[in-house]
Amino acid sequence: MKETSIEKALTYIEPGPVVLVTTFDGEKNNVMTISWTMAIDFDQHLVLTTGEWNHSFGTLMHTGECVVCIPPAEMLETVVRIGMVSGADTDKFKRFHLNPLPAQTVQAPLLDGCIACLECKVTDYIERYGFVVLKVTRVVENTRCQDLRMIHARGDGTFTADGASFNCRELMESKLPPGL
Amino acid sequence: MKETSIEKALTYIEPGPVVLVTTFDGEKNNVMTISWTMAIDFDQHLVLTTGEWNHSFGTLMHTGECVVCIPPAEMLETVVRIGMVSGADTDKFKRFHLNPLPAQTVQAPLLDGCIACLECKVTDYIERYGFVVLKVTRVVENTRCQDLRMIHARGDGTFTADGASFNCRELMESKLPPGL
Repeated sequence: MKETSIEKALTYIEPGPVVLVTTFDGEKNNVMTISWTMAIDFDQHLVLTTGEWNHSFGTLMHTGECVVCIPPAEMLETVVRIGMVSGADTDKFKRFHLNPLPAQTVQAPLLDGCIACLECKVTDYIERYGFVVLKVTRVVENTRCQDLRMIHARGDGTFTADGASFNCRELMESKLPPGL
Repeated sequence: MKETSIEKALTYIEPGPVVLVTTFDGEKNNVMTISWTMAIDFDQHLVLTTGEWNHSFGTLMHTGECVVCIPPAEMLETVVRIGMVSGADTDKFKRFHLNPLPAQTVQAPLLDGCIACLECKVTDYIERYGFVVLKVTRVVENTRCQDLRMIHARGDGTFTADGASFNCRELMESKLPPGL
């Protein structure tokens, strides 16, 4: 895992991938699968929709910290299984043989094997909708990741992986965010 | 364009695609490209982040209506170009040869050639972040669309199209939303 520029956070959230959100409650690491996320500005804020139904939610709100990790398509089955059990009665890191790596700006762990990990602090919470607003404080990329295809959930139990890529930078030149 | 079940709205938003949002101000159709969207529940609500910088924003807030359309990968260049000009000085439907089709529950038009269109009503607005909360009122699918690959923006002027798809319905059976 290698640190990269903070501006790259957007490139991992704007595509709308399924993410794994890690937390640390002071004793134990936990991780949840989330597909309801959104980029909201060019200043490394993002929002995710969650609530009491996720065991990680309490820890997330209490510690004000998490790591948003981008799993590759080859991890799909594990990503789905992580979303099917609760940290309330399962040590997901043990059960799914996840390898936590130390973050620098938060206590929650990076996840070995993910394409990238975004260390985040909670900056706001809109209770009516369960919107947790996060500010990315550090971005690391997995330089050894062979599979760079993000996963997209269809919401019906089917998923797609990234396919063909296209470069429209020239067309968008005047609107590209600084640093990207 | 053929009407389908309202529950299918989720399957077009949860994957995190770039969308085209149409509005009608009483005189003219307009359309904007948005990639900051998020599914937020199983009751056909979604949120998109926008604001005064989009000419369509005023119409969206004034009429309380729009259509969220899902363009196929083959429309990418048009999708990008739509995002580079303003409805303030450009008739985008004319300029980009877009074919508006009548919606049923809103005045804003469906977009011919898109994979699906979600007719939506504005239900809330969180000004601090520019979150426009929408409720989908009708879903139509393009039964003649050959290219069903959604587009995902990387935020840096590059894009990916949907690639391989995976079925994890069996694994997720107990958590699949009703109707999907």
